[in-house]
Amino acid sequence: MSKTIAINAGSSSLKWQLYTMPEEIVVAQGIVERIGLNDSIFTIKHGEGQKYEVIKDIENHEIAVNMLLEQLTELNIIDSFEEITGAGHRIVAGGEHFKESAIIDDEALKLIDDLAEFAPLHNPAEAQVIRVFQKVLPHTLNVGVFDTSFHTTMPAVNYLYSIPKEYYDKFSARKYGAHGTSHRYVSERAADMLGKPLAETKIITCHLGNGASITAVDGGKSVDTSMGFTPLAGLTMGTRSGDIDASILPYLMEKLNITDIKEMINILNKESGLLGLSGISSDMRDLLSSDKEDAKLAIEIFADRVRKYIGSYVSVMNGVDAIVFTAGIGENSIEIREKIMEGLTWFGCEIDKEKNNIRGEERVISTDDSSVKILLIPTDEELMICRDVEALKK
Amino acid sequence: MSKTIAINAGSSSLKWQLYTMPEEIVVAQGIVERIGLNDSIFTIKHGEGQKYEVIKDIENHEIAVNMLLEQLTELNIIDSFEEITGAGHRIVAGGEHFKESAIIDDEALKLIDDLAEFAPLHNPAEAQVIRVFQKVLPHTLNVGVFDTSFHTTMPAVNYLYSIPKEYYDKFSARKYGAHGTSHRYVSERAADMLGKPLAETKIITCHLGNGASITAVDGGKSVDTSMGFTPLAGLTMGTRSGDIDASILPYLMEKLNITDIKEMINILNKESGLLGLSGISSDMRDLLSSDKEDAKLAIEIFADRVRKYIGSYVSVMNGVDAIVFTAGIGENSIEIREKIMEGLTWFGCEIDKEKNNIRGEERVISTDDSSVKILLIPTDEELMICRDVEALKK
Repeated sequence: MSKTIAINAGSSSLKWQLYTMPEEIVVAQGIVERIGLNDSIFTIKHGEGQKYEVIKDIENHEIAVNMLLEQLTELNIIDSFEEITGAGHRIVAGGEHFKESAIIDDEALKLIDDLAEFAPLHNPAEAQVIRVFQKVLPHTLNVGVFDTSFHTTMPAVNYLYSIPKEYYDKFSARKYGAHGTSHRYVSERAADMLGKPLAETKIITCHLGNGASITAVDGGKSVDTSMGFTPLAGLTMGTRSGDIDASILPYLMEKLNITDIKEMINILNKESGLLGLSGISSDMRDLLSSDKEDAKLAIEIFADRVRKYIGSYVSVMNGVDAIVFTAGIGENSIEIREKIMEGLTWFGCEIDKEKNNIRGEERVISTDDSSVKILLIPTDEELMICRDVEALKK
Repeated sequence: MSKTIAINAGSSSLKWQLYTMPEEIVVAQGIVERIGLNDSIFTIKHGEGQKYEVIKDIENHEIAVNMLLEQLTELNIIDSFEEITGAGHRIVAGGEHFKESAIIDDEALKLIDDLAEFAPLHNPAEAQVIRVFQKVLPHTLNVGVFDTSFHTTMPAVNYLYSIPKEYYDKFSARKYGAHGTSHRYVSERAADMLGKPLAETKIITCHLGNGASITAVDGGKSVDTSMGFTPLAGLTMGTRSGDIDASILPYLMEKLNITDIKEMINILNKESGLLGLSGISSDMRDLLSSDKEDAKLAIEIFADRVRKYIGSYVSVMNGVDAIVFTAGIGENSIEIREKIMEGLTWFGCEIDKEKNNIRGEERVISTDDSSVKILLIPTDEELMICRDVEALKK
């Protein structure tokens, strides 16, 4: 049976999910963590809740991929390597070039490398893993699925910053967004649930996880999104600040005695957001179970920023049919969904507390009378990746 | 007759307006430009369109104020210096201390000096001018009217950035906003025009000039505003970028070979916005009369950002009774008001093209059926300043 693997590679990790295609059945999934460090963790889940885990030093991605393939055979998940006919690689930065998922040839691979300046931690690791796949699975079709592709339909009005235009013309300095595969998946599902052609819908998709972004999807196309040149901008996130006044940077750098702006940006990426505000945790669950005032404040700020982006994206589309919640917080936090929506009743959204009392299941969670529908849709980026590979096999 | 003067001092300028109070009649107004430079320009307008202008070197603010007082006597606008019983000074940064306008004693003056780190170009010049007034008009009550005071009612949810909380606790790093006197004035007028008590209104005030900001005024109180730690943030302005992804700064600095972040922030303040986008001008009138594609794009971006903030502030208040346009562009650009509002019909706003065909006059410009009212209200910060002085005289 033909199988396709979805790959999400980080600089020291490799997350994967193996599908039988075109049946779209997950046959196994797993993660390799701490690649290149001591005591790397190699995990496979398969069958009916079976789990295989081993801890040993895994020096690099090539060894990790080889180990994965051998173990898949060992566990009788695949009969031979040739069974894996496609590999879909999630790539963070696709710039303006990759407007959709693409077969990775030498030219595409070079472009992914060149785009490293937009995602210095991700693109090089992703390119490296693709090279490993090309080597150990020479018969497999490698496809790049880009976080940014879905947002390449944004009009210039929304992707340009109000800075000298030549910075865009010369340096491609603009908004790219992220989480595109997730926003694409849930907006397509939303149209299905609304029973309307995607082309006739105005949907606001809220991908609320440790990283979080909101997209205005008009007629199936991303027209604006909250992340920016990088994933730093937009909403309050687990550890990212989201939007701030740029002029606070030199002020803080002086106060903190920081001379390198990259160090300041690192604080905004790694020590800010829910973690920075609460002083407790970047995990919404920890904040929800905390009595500390700053934790409560962080939750209120998170909900406020989501509401503001929803309001502004209603403006962008001059209307909205549905608001979608997805990703970790969006799928699982009953309380946060309720908190967000209770502040938006003027927009004609009414959440149904009973219907909302659920985690991780596809469901309409607004009242029958609500003129704007509220939808809970678990995202499935891996499936979307494998579908894209499947489409390119033909 | 008792007179009060409203003062707006810059580092090399002094703008003023003289009122008979409490009658609120403007008896003269003028500006001294290029103070401390060669060929300073000293202008007074008074009576029925009379104008007095002289060009000569004016070395400092003290000479400027003395010249102003002498000329006011000379032109028979005042009989004696003692007639000027009050002076209201516009101060850019009032920090968290000045929650309303305040009589300037030694302590207040020291605080204004101390707040210079939030407005390095403005507060020192303003403090200097107050000292000149204390010297040459010792009998006059000096009152500070702060751009930030109106926004001190913002809740922490809206004034905090999602950065480590200690940066607020230790360094007061937060959103302060600006244009407070204007937002306060037009929101009060709006409640009058709506025929509702201010406490029962939800108003979004759009101060659209060369500097531009939008405020959510709930029950007469500012609850959120688009400018931030400094006036750099928020909307696309004449030369200011408004909101951008902070992480674009290190990227651009590397491309532009800039090592000092202050230089980069200076570009965002002085060379960005409408000017940077269009490559033509920071003045909306120039862009509206241009055929250049980038000028049209800059106009669209300007309107888009205004619409987005309106949408997000409807979210903040979970409703809106009226949207107010004021300041240079807001009062005078029929085209821009129409362009903004035509994208917000879903919100129940309908602009009346005929009623909108007017400049600089207080008027309801929405249709009778529009559920959200659209108001044109010329701002009058000088009057507001003099009213505050009058109130503190008692």
